[in-house]
Amino acid sequence: MTTDIKAALRAQAIETPSWAYGNSGTRFKVFAQPGVPRDPFEKLADAAQVHAFTGIAPSVALHIPWDRVDDYAALSAHAAGLGVRIGAINSNVFQDDDYRLGSVTNPDPRIRRKATDHLLACVDIMDATGSDTLKLWFSDGINYPGQDDLRARQDRLAEALSEVYDRLGEGQRFLLEYKLFEPAFYATDVPDWGTAYAHCVRLGEKAQVVVDTGHHAPGTNIEFIVAFLLREGRLGGFDFNSRFYADDDLMVGSADPFQLFRIMFEVVRGGGYGPDSGVAFMLDQCHNVEPKIAGQIRSVMNVQEATAKALLVDTGALAAAQAAGDVLGANAVLMDAYDTDVRPLLAELRAEAGLEPDPMAAYARSGYFEKVCAERVGGTQAGWGA
Amino acid sequence: MTTDIKAALRAQAIETPSWAYGNSGTRFKVFAQPGVPRDPFEKLADAAQVHAFTGIAPSVALHIPWDRVDDYAALSAHAAGLGVRIGAINSNVFQDDDYRLGSVTNPDPRIRRKATDHLLACVDIMDATGSDTLKLWFSDGINYPGQDDLRARQDRLAEALSEVYDRLGEGQRFLLEYKLFEPAFYATDVPDWGTAYAHCVRLGEKAQVVVDTGHHAPGTNIEFIVAFLLREGRLGGFDFNSRFYADDDLMVGSADPFQLFRIMFEVVRGGGYGPDSGVAFMLDQCHNVEPKIAGQIRSVMNVQEATAKALLVDTGALAAAQAAGDVLGANAVLMDAYDTDVRPLLAELRAEAGLEPDPMAAYARSGYFEKVCAERVGGTQAGWGA
Amino acid sequence: MTTDIKAALRAQAIETPSWAYGNSGTRFKVFAQPGVPRDPFEKLADAAQVHAFTGIAPSVALHIPWDRVDDYAALSAHAAGLGVRIGAINSNVFQDDDYRLGSVTNPDPRIRRKATDHLLACVDIMDATGSDTLKLWFSDGINYPGQDDLRARQDRLAEALSEVYDRLGEGQRFLLEYKLFEPAFYATDVPDWGTAYAHCVRLGEKAQVVVDTGHHAPGTNIEFIVAFLLREGRLGGFDFNSRFYADDDLMVGSADPFQLFRIMFEVVRGGGYGPDSGVAFMLDQCHNVEPKIAGQIRSVMNVQEATAKALLVDTGALAAAQAAGDVLGANAVLMDAYDTDVRPLLAELRAEAGLEPDPMAAYARSGYFEKVCAERVGGTQAGWGA
Amino acid sequence: MTTDIKAALRAQAIETPSWAYGNSGTRFKVFAQPGVPRDPFEKLADAAQVHAFTGIAPSVALHIPWDRVDDYAALSAHAAGLGVRIGAINSNVFQDDDYRLGSVTNPDPRIRRKATDHLLACVDIMDATGSDTLKLWFSDGINYPGQDDLRARQDRLAEALSEVYDRLGEGQRFLLEYKLFEPAFYATDVPDWGTAYAHCVRLGEKAQVVVDTGHHAPGTNIEFIVAFLLREGRLGGFDFNSRFYADDDLMVGSADPFQLFRIMFEVVRGGGYGPDSGVAFMLDQCHNVEPKIAGQIRSVMNVQEATAKALLVDTGALAAAQAAGDVLGANAVLMDAYDTDVRPLLAELRAEAGLEPDPMAAYARSGYFEKVCAERVGGTQAGWGA
Repeated sequence: MTTDIKAALRAQAIETPSWAYGNSGTRFKVFAQPGVPRDPFEKLADAAQVHAFTGIAPSVALHIPWDRVDDYAALSAHAAGLGVRIGAINSNVFQDDDYRLGSVTNPDPRIRRKATDHLLACVDIMDATGSDTLKLWFSDGINYPGQDDLRARQDRLAEALSEVYDRLGEGQRFLLEYKLFEPAFYATDVPDWGTAYAHCVRLGEKAQVVVDTGHHAPGTNIEFIVAFLLREGRLGGFDFNSRFYADDDLMVGSADPFQLFRIMFEVVRGGGYGPDSGVAFMLDQCHNVEPKIAGQIRSVMNVQEATAKALLVDTGALAAAQAAGDVLGANAVLMDAYDTDVRPLLAELRAEAGLEPDPMAAYARSGYFEKVCAERVGGTQAGWGA
Repeated sequence: MTTDIKAALRAQAIETPSWAYGNSGTRFKVFAQPGVPRDPFEKLADAAQVHAFTGIAPSVALHIPWDRVDDYAALSAHAAGLGVRIGAINSNVFQDDDYRLGSVTNPDPRIRRKATDHLLACVDIMDATGSDTLKLWFSDGINYPGQDDLRARQDRLAEALSEVYDRLGEGQRFLLEYKLFEPAFYATDVPDWGTAYAHCVRLGEKAQVVVDTGHHAPGTNIEFIVAFLLREGRLGGFDFNSRFYADDDLMVGSADPFQLFRIMFEVVRGGGYGPDSGVAFMLDQCHNVEPKIAGQIRSVMNVQEATAKALLVDTGALAAAQAAGDVLGANAVLMDAYDTDVRPLLAELRAEAGLEPDPMAAYARSGYFEKVCAERVGGTQAGWGA
Repeated sequence: MTTDIKAALRAQAIETPSWAYGNSGTRFKVFAQPGVPRDPFEKLADAAQVHAFTGIAPSVALHIPWDRVDDYAALSAHAAGLGVRIGAINSNVFQDDDYRLGSVTNPDPRIRRKATDHLLACVDIMDATGSDTLKLWFSDGINYPGQDDLRARQDRLAEALSEVYDRLGEGQRFLLEYKLFEPAFYATDVPDWGTAYAHCVRLGEKAQVVVDTGHHAPGTNIEFIVAFLLREGRLGGFDFNSRFYADDDLMVGSADPFQLFRIMFEVVRGGGYGPDSGVAFMLDQCHNVEPKIAGQIRSVMNVQEATAKALLVDTGALAAAQAAGDVLGANAVLMDAYDTDVRPLLAELRAEAGLEPDPMAAYARSGYFEKVCAERVGGTQAGWGA
Repeated sequence: MTTDIKAALRAQAIETPSWAYGNSGTRFKVFAQPGVPRDPFEKLADAAQVHAFTGIAPSVALHIPWDRVDDYAALSAHAAGLGVRIGAINSNVFQDDDYRLGSVTNPDPRIRRKATDHLLACVDIMDATGSDTLKLWFSDGINYPGQDDLRARQDRLAEALSEVYDRLGEGQRFLLEYKLFEPAFYATDVPDWGTAYAHCVRLGEKAQVVVDTGHHAPGTNIEFIVAFLLREGRLGGFDFNSRFYADDDLMVGSADPFQLFRIMFEVVRGGGYGPDSGVAFMLDQCHNVEPKIAGQIRSVMNVQEATAKALLVDTGALAAAQAAGDVLGANAVLMDAYDTDVRPLLAELRAEAGLEPDPMAAYARSGYFEKVCAERVGGTQAGWGA
């Protein structure tokens, strides 16, 4: 069985986000860190380090306009030269003064047009980079009851989504992201999986739901949503991160590793694991106080450990206990996998692949961080604004 | 305009639940109250009082098996004699030892069969009573990760729902209720509106979603769900009550009257108000510490007041402010209606209908409570168990 | 009785925060607005408008270093010339790169010293401006389990608070603010009222707790905390705002006006109302999408309306119903006051004081907003960063 | 180091609650289980099994009146004969119709007297059984705003607590428990640790706070409270259980094992571990759907595993990383302990103590469950009501 698990783990691919390598923060303060990239090329270089030490982070998500470049072919080639490739294109229709009252759901048709045009331009970038996935997150919503018409905003949303959907080419898809709140506080236009799902179903197969693990109300059972969307054939992927309270964007697996394990178990159980599943594993995090590249390496490792544990579950014993109504027995089968220390297995896996067994230590030894700190002096550090 | 509002208010109908007249409580204690009915006939008599004093509570929901009788025609006739009628039939598949691990989603096919048979029997009671609405709430879920297979439970749920759906006759429908948690603590099989919606869409037009206002995670915007379901044509009705934290089942409008107003505003705005809308207004409450009939009267009045305020919104001014992006102006239009004291208007409305202007005081003066306290001695008080 | 209520309302004073007049936003975007002040003097001018139209906003809180000036006497004189005065001094130890891992609780003693020195400098500004209140909010906390020692951070906090406490002069006090989360996500060093209370009790009478209405976990009963702190003699004041989910900083009374009423009722009932109570009513809000001066006027009016309703409660009838165990009767007494439309009373009160009855409309007619939009061109708009 | 850890683990004592062996459920249904005890003597027999197989559950908490007997000396002797002893006495002032509107905070002085007398009677039982700990949990609170006076209820609470405090003998203490909500829904009289703490501080050293891990609002950092109370010398003990949403009373460690580990780490770090610490580890759970004795064994093991991991933390390395501001390094030290599989260590520990290495399997093999199922026929099964 260990052989099968290792094979499955070797096939894993976790996408890191270009913006995780830039500065980030809260509304209170963005703390600048040394060595932070100044442009998309340097972000890719950092992302390539994560892949170099983990072996399972071969692609990098872009955020437009933060990662806008003149020549996407050059950017793709740069990535290839670093041993990585460009992944999902993330649209951004929330950082222009025009979007104060919304983007595609704005009451002003001029602004809606502008926002939709941006989304269409993102598909152009998909064409230019070979990316097959467009990720759509809308900060749209309202802060006060009555501020705008909840239903009219759905009509506008549907119209924009439909136009973008029709623009998608062969082999392209979009993932619609939902989020309970922030930056809108009273009502968000895509607040939950049900809303995203309903829009996707109306549009067709190329529209799927993406689950950001930090975007739910307290008490929400995320793995249930995962299981349900897989059953409906509508789970497009994950934006992984951790939260204790709101959308904290901490390192995935750092707040509730057991939850991450349960999610990965449902992914595997529901056929969402593996290259043919169409389920993308992406990180979406902010390293506000910790170093960024190391933070990404640790995060990738956390997903890998949760995956290994999920693959370890004795599904035969589990099914037998469940069928027998053996509550404690069934729970124990699951917990037995979770309680297992999979770090030796993963160290072995890495060694077999020619990697260092301990990616964190190996990265620290590499001197890369010191190098970029020394080199990246001057210029403007990348962040959410650029 | 006041004329229109009055006409709209005269057409309102709020259904009270038979179980609100019996004893209820928490897992810690059910406090017995004097005068509580001993059987469904006495429950109907109490419900008729609510209608007599408010004029807008003409129907009574039944709960099976709590309200099982030998002769439903006799029960219907009894209701008619009291000036009320039988409303929705509520199924109950959570109070038999067999349902410890679930009813229609139980791993044991024998128990699933038993549960589904109960649901079908409820449709028989609909036929016998002339009720057009079956309300389905499933307590099904699991307490521990791994206890049962989340996805298999959805398959079993879909199978049972399909069988019940096929049994529905002309003019009959079922409403599928969702609930975040309780009595299941780790995962509930119908935890949110998205799950209920997806099952209903697969089944067809006779399957609709019912929104219980106490069944959401903290921070959930309920009026958004109302607006969305109305847009999709899938809002079947409400189970009204109030909550501060969980499914507290307090008097509707007592915890957050502004939220109730916002919900009613979306109902009206989305075409969910009025006899032709198909949206049922039902109460689902527990009067654990307060008197039950008076508690129902107050609750009906709270819904009526919220409705009156919702009807008072100057929709023209609201639309204009929204279109202009006037955040404070649009909010002010809504708040102006909410801040209005509609009690004089409603007193006038009642007087015009030949009712006492103050239902609470009139009921207190009527001596009904003292009468039933004196009469209903001996026997077993109705409660959740009977 | 109306006479007494009017007298009480005339004595009300609500402090507006200088930072509410500058730009603000979320981590995603700060939307710039026209006419925003460029310096503390212009902020005071805007605040004076709020007082001019409401008559009950005579003081303005400062935030240091955002409102740092060379000559505080000149700033005080400027305020006096505008008909307002300087209120609480708010310290800020969260916007320096040094504070990435905390200010007064930072593991590095050099940074702790720097932070404490800033707090002491704020007392100097109190001396210079005649302010009697220092407001202490610490963003200090950690994002990851293990990141720092929870208990050692309390020791460091106690040490800094003690040093600041000893520096307070005659007639000066500090208010310690608590907050559940943000910007720290795993653990905040002053997360709840109990923590603030315990530190204050150890220090002495000049240390009191301030309640920010947006800083609690879901389900928290804020009016309970108010009642409890008043009973203990430790309620120093409020930072008023509204929230639906987290620390949304919306206009007070906009999300849950009933809650605001309940809070004001406990304030009045517990002796926290009136100039001698020592309980400061302060706003702490962000007008991210709505105009700022108008937003403050509306907020002040919302507090005033809630106060008027709280004063309207028939406390004799309430006490009688409570003593009799009359659940519905007691609740009805409270609701009767809440359901009253107090806007006519407040319009009358304003007219008697020589103010326009409708502050929002009067401000709009005044042309002030258009004037500052025209005048305040160039320079750097004030915001959280300056 | 392993030697020290083993020594520390050998000294651990976890108290199981008599009521965990009886039937329990939710307000919807109590599912009866086979083999359930009919009286306190049989409950002690079941509890003795938990101790027999784990070796670390030597005492059993009683709940009065559920465990009322004529002869407490006989009950104590029975316990001793089974190898266990009687632990904390839990008072119950929530299951009498008189307590509908509260017990010690009831507006009716007669009922307050009755409730306080019950608490005093519990101290009598402490004298009779040799128990040194009284656990006080009050379900007191109100369901509706205005229902009763929040502050007056605190006065009444203080009065009752003072009377009970004065009755405590040499070497006796009481633990005051707090709970956010349930069964009261609007306001609970002891809703949070701050309230319990403030009352205890006023009373003296014999009054301490007990932390029930299921009694907090979402997002509350429980280990912070633990650290804070230990720093203040006021942590009396734990009521351990797990929750996903409310007070679910699931097996401790089953919902969030990482949280349990963090709590145990703060206990150890703050001097709360070990027989001299005065911190009692108690379970307070309901096994609604799973078998009860096995559920208790599993729970005791979960606490033990979390303790072992907490003891494994390399505190020297942790302190060094914290002092250096090494966020990822410090977190990694903590996670390294958590990720360790401690089950082999614990199996070894048990073997050294003459126990079976796998308590769950050993208990299953013992045939005890089958034996009591066969023997305990007839009579009334114990539950919350008896």
